[in-house]
Amino acid sequence: MLKHFLYSPGPTPVPEEVLLEMANPLIHHRTPQFFKIIQENFELLQYIFQTKNPVITITSSGTGAMEASVTNFLSPKDKAIVLSAGKFGERFAEICRAYNINVIEIKAPYGMDVKAEELEKALKQNPDTKAVFTEYSETSTGVAFDIKSIAKVVKNTEAILVVDGISAIGAMEFKMDEWAIDVALAGSQKAFMIPPGLSFISFSEKAKKMMEKSTLPKYYFNLTKEKESLEKNTTAWTPAISLFIALNSALKLMKKEGLESITKRHALIAEACRKAVQSIGLSILPVVPAVKPSDTLTAVKVPAGIDGLKIPSLMRDKYGVTIAGGQESLKGKIFRLGHLGYFGISDIIIELQAMELALKELGYKFDYGKSVFTAQKVIEEHLL
Amino acid sequence: MLKHFLYSPGPTPVPEEVLLEMANPLIHHRTPQFFKIIQENFELLQYIFQTKNPVITITSSGTGAMEASVTNFLSPKDKAIVLSAGKFGERFAEICRAYNINVIEIKAPYGMDVKAEELEKALKQNPDTKAVFTEYSETSTGVAFDIKSIAKVVKNTEAILVVDGISAIGAMEFKMDEWAIDVALAGSQKAFMIPPGLSFISFSEKAKKMMEKSTLPKYYFNLTKEKESLEKNTTAWTPAISLFIALNSALKLMKKEGLESITKRHALIAEACRKAVQSIGLSILPVVPAVKPSDTLTAVKVPAGIDGLKIPSLMRDKYGVTIAGGQESLKGKIFRLGHLGYFGISDIIIELQAMELALKELGYKFDYGKSVFTAQKVIEEHLL
Repeated sequence: MLKHFLYSPGPTPVPEEVLLEMANPLIHHRTPQFFKIIQENFELLQYIFQTKNPVITITSSGTGAMEASVTNFLSPKDKAIVLSAGKFGERFAEICRAYNINVIEIKAPYGMDVKAEELEKALKQNPDTKAVFTEYSETSTGVAFDIKSIAKVVKNTEAILVVDGISAIGAMEFKMDEWAIDVALAGSQKAFMIPPGLSFISFSEKAKKMMEKSTLPKYYFNLTKEKESLEKNTTAWTPAISLFIALNSALKLMKKEGLESITKRHALIAEACRKAVQSIGLSILPVVPAVKPSDTLTAVKVPAGIDGLKIPSLMRDKYGVTIAGGQESLKGKIFRLGHLGYFGISDIIIELQAMELALKELGYKFDYGKSVFTAQKVIEEHLL
Repeated sequence: MLKHFLYSPGPTPVPEEVLLEMANPLIHHRTPQFFKIIQENFELLQYIFQTKNPVITITSSGTGAMEASVTNFLSPKDKAIVLSAGKFGERFAEICRAYNINVIEIKAPYGMDVKAEELEKALKQNPDTKAVFTEYSETSTGVAFDIKSIAKVVKNTEAILVVDGISAIGAMEFKMDEWAIDVALAGSQKAFMIPPGLSFISFSEKAKKMMEKSTLPKYYFNLTKEKESLEKNTTAWTPAISLFIALNSALKLMKKEGLESITKRHALIAEACRKAVQSIGLSILPVVPAVKPSDTLTAVKVPAGIDGLKIPSLMRDKYGVTIAGGQESLKGKIFRLGHLGYFGISDIIIELQAMELALKELGYKFDYGKSVFTAQKVIEEHLL
């Protein structure tokens, strides 16, 4: 018997009670019963996003919400600045280009972030910028952008700030209204503890004004239409009913735990994970102290002489623990330990033990058991 | 205790064993285990579509596949003919307009279809037409378009034929390759017996050549990218994993029953339903014999003097049976009895009994019990 654990930075584990919700007989989406689900979800999502803005739920993966954040606010040839230091920042730039947006990409190497000061300079040089796109937690590198400082810079310009919070919102501190974020995105298979298939997008009054003037083509991802539907507790198109129902159950669990407690839990486990892997001589991304790591995943550099592609497959096939490898230029060079969503202090121990076994088998020399013990110590110090 | 039955023309009932598949622990989508699911689904979908073409599964509702069928094959200002006699035909025209396509809409009243001869004339007048869009089963009116004849007309032109088979494919006879359909769409919550959230799109070699030249903007719904991913048994974006797994289970049930048997089952039940409602003096759409009804739903005209909006709500709230009302201009004027997907000869009896109770309560004068008995007789004659 091999027990299985899903510890990727998305999809993340789904609580049993939430899984069972999806096994209930299907209900129709144009019924009072489902209208209530939509209304409750909406209010709970506002709580998670810390906003009074509408939060739209779309039946698509996160990339759909990213596309919606371009096509609903911009018009052809508009100028946009994309802060890019990983695969998902690059995706924003790709989407903008696909829709004929004039993109200025401020690029940093994978593992770094883009600083608010650089953006400020670029905005001064390009006062006609209509939108700034940034990651919060760059899932491909495990780096957290300083979106609070970035938002302060964008706030006093004509541009809107679009934040991809797909692997951050609901796990790391995020205050949409207080921090003056204009458009925020999230995905169901991350902190929201349900399977992939839904994405979330919220927009401010400033963004709404741009939306009214936007002429980029769109149909399925039409937020004006979705907003009107949401006001009647419905959706523009047939929604993924089972996932909406699972979401309702998961959001109630999140509300019960409370945002502050969720954030602290993720921060503690992330700290335990980072100290643990470093205690056995491994390095993580980001590489410099001025850049902050994300609290939802830890990107670990593959040590010299070890076949990086084998770490995730060995952990999964031999020890039942699914993590993620590196993507694009980081393929084989990092592995990513997820600690996100329905993830407790027991899970990080399981994850580290599987990592240690795989590393030992692949020939990495270290003090076996030390990363697990280091994590235990961090947890003990915080809890006892 | 009120037993609940979901008899709308989508979402349709989901078999218990399929529902339970979604309650299994979530697996990661970039694993050999999930690659196998994608490969099996692909082959089973080819069987359902009766095609050797690629069949792409998209995480979106059917409208997403409709959008993909416009944006992946056409370029701005291309000319397209839309055959429109209901809400979903109109949606094709709306999507085309949203993407700056030069649309010729051949309109017929709700409850009618558009004949191949009319299309032939329009194609002769517009030899530069790039695509023809049509419904197979127009879900808003219960009408089946004669797509076999339509395909014959389009086949010898430069245009591709796009068929919305969302409430038809997998339930009514459909032979993509034999009939020379270029692009075919379907949706998960119809004949496929799983919840909404997935749509399917297949395209021919002729369509693929247009796809290579298409310049309309797209990103999430990029079929070139999806086709490349499918060849590696994966998806371009994070898929709705649970729904892919449910689909695998449902497609295997469909394969086991066999397409011919599925088609016959739907035809028999549809005939029973039509004769049943007519036996108590009700009329159905289509109104003339030259137009064929769909075998997946029956659109029944609300009799004079009866409040049409109350029929579905009474059936649902008092008798536990969810059907659908009319949409757009047919609101309150028709009600739609679904008989689609996981729907057997017992279900049509339950549905008709609930309809009779609601009609009687609302004051309609008829021979109580007669529609149920009529359906029973049709079933008996076919089976015994």
